[in-house]
Amino acid sequence: MNKLVAYQHIVEEGLSHIPLSGKPTELYEPIRYMLALGGKRMRPALTLFGCDLFDGDITKALHAALGLELFHNFTLVHDDIMDKAPLRRNKPTVHHKWDHNIAILSGDAMFVKAYQQICKVDISVLTPVLQIFNDTALFVCEGQQLDMNYEKVQKIRIAEYLHMIELKTAVLLAGSLKIGAVIGGAKPEDAASIYEFGKNIGIAFQLQDDILDVYGEAGKFGKQTGGDIISNKKTFLLLKAMEVAERMPYKREELLQWINAPHFDPRDKVEAVTEIYNFLNIRSLAREEMEKHYQKGLKFLEEIPVSQDKKAALKHMADSLMVREA
Amino acid sequence: MNKLVAYQHIVEEGLSHIPLSGKPTELYEPIRYMLALGGKRMRPALTLFGCDLFDGDITKALHAALGLELFHNFTLVHDDIMDKAPLRRNKPTVHHKWDHNIAILSGDAMFVKAYQQICKVDISVLTPVLQIFNDTALFVCEGQQLDMNYEKVQKIRIAEYLHMIELKTAVLLAGSLKIGAVIGGAKPEDAASIYEFGKNIGIAFQLQDDILDVYGEAGKFGKQTGGDIISNKKTFLLLKAMEVAERMPYKREELLQWINAPHFDPRDKVEAVTEIYNFLNIRSLAREEMEKHYQKGLKFLEEIPVSQDKKAALKHMADSLMVREA
Repeated sequence: MNKLVAYQHIVEEGLSHIPLSGKPTELYEPIRYMLALGGKRMRPALTLFGCDLFDGDITKALHAALGLELFHNFTLVHDDIMDKAPLRRNKPTVHHKWDHNIAILSGDAMFVKAYQQICKVDISVLTPVLQIFNDTALFVCEGQQLDMNYEKVQKIRIAEYLHMIELKTAVLLAGSLKIGAVIGGAKPEDAASIYEFGKNIGIAFQLQDDILDVYGEAGKFGKQTGGDIISNKKTFLLLKAMEVAERMPYKREELLQWINAPHFDPRDKVEAVTEIYNFLNIRSLAREEMEKHYQKGLKFLEEIPVSQDKKAALKHMADSLMVREA
Repeated sequence: MNKLVAYQHIVEEGLSHIPLSGKPTELYEPIRYMLALGGKRMRPALTLFGCDLFDGDITKALHAALGLELFHNFTLVHDDIMDKAPLRRNKPTVHHKWDHNIAILSGDAMFVKAYQQICKVDISVLTPVLQIFNDTALFVCEGQQLDMNYEKVQKIRIAEYLHMIELKTAVLLAGSLKIGAVIGGAKPEDAASIYEFGKNIGIAFQLQDDILDVYGEAGKFGKQTGGDIISNKKTFLLLKAMEVAERMPYKREELLQWINAPHFDPRDKVEAVTEIYNFLNIRSLAREEMEKHYQKGLKFLEEIPVSQDKKAALKHMADSLMVREA
């Protein structure tokens, strides 16, 4: 059994022991429901990896790890309201299964439960751990707000998009690792390096998600291929295509027609936009960008003066999360 | 200048120095807007009172006090969404001035800003302060959920109502005091007593609010007299009236007719229901209940072995908040 699987088991076990049977049930049942939807438990696993990397005792990082998973699920509950998402992991989202108010409030309660776990770390590292957690939580809010802002804007620069996904997605992976590292006894400069590793790997993950939406195997990732194309989601691929097509007015016009089409057959749109992407070589450009961040992240990992074995385990985990493309 | 006014000044000054100029502005502007709406700053003032009661240095309690005010304002933003309230302090609520999503997310961000302030307390008391804060925050969520549940239920017992207002309103006053007391160096048993003082005084405040809605001077409290009657809000007065009227089928029927009336002149309804309350002696019964909790609270304060001067200052503050009735 590799480390990731072992850590996932430890996290599941830990989650099952968090007291969530309080009253009123309308407040706590959605929290149990969200946690039961499952997931890769990537963030808490990263906290354990971060601790282990510095030869820390991972049992001392478990509560913080659980706090990060609770926080992540809290953001999903509120994001799903904001994004009007009916489904998550093929199950009804909290605001659909219950209602908006319950989703807002049980999300808030889950956020407090996250802090309760974080607060269980040893007093010797409580202040730095809370500081990383608070900063990260605020960045995630900023990222979600930028994401909502960008939905209403016609033109977004690639740099703005990368900054948004850094805040919305990547910093939580970075913060999860760094919190584990601090608990594991990492020096400040090494904790900073592991943060940069996580941040860059996180950006690479999101770019991979953007690529997989168009080029992934349908069904394998729990969503329809081309969902982002159908909804005109401003992914790296679309933004890059608009950028490259600026020099090709005819292709640009074709892309804009599909984006602005009030009525269309979804399959036609996915096929046509994918062909435009292919013509503009967008898949390669996206992979290049992804690879750039991935390699940049690995460099930060290499800088950290710990055993090659430990680094290899963490790199293996990152690799296993990066090879989902069809 | 009495202590309350002095503390309010200190709190206002402290609030003005919290960094809230981050980006995106959609996230931070609603936080500044909420704080600028003002208010009595009762919770942070109580934190300073709690600290001073035990001869603590109130400058050491200021950050926690600000955290409690931020937390309170976060709950208002989310509660206003849930209650579909268009106005607060005669100004548009955040979700009306901006939109629902911004209100959810800027509320979340304000919650993090609250924790950032709380986390600034001295490391020697960080763990107990966070524990009180986390517990209190969860109680407040539970209280809000109960309040929403009770809206949909025909019959609520007085004891259930009192439990709900204890969670939704009173424990935050209690927790604010206790956090100040812990920072001020209170012994655990004295911190527990000040909590009970705050909790009972808080219940009395809420009962007073219920009374003032019907018997207060219109306009003086920023809301129309009888608003609770118009909206059939299940206040202590209505629940008590239903209870007393159980022995008087004729009055009960009259009350139910107004409650269930699909169309009515608001002034007629307020006048008629107030007359029923008068007939059933509800104002006195509510005052009795309020006085009971107020006196119970004072007893807990008296038990605390600190100077009579300090107790008098805190009692004076509580009194000044209790004499708003017309």
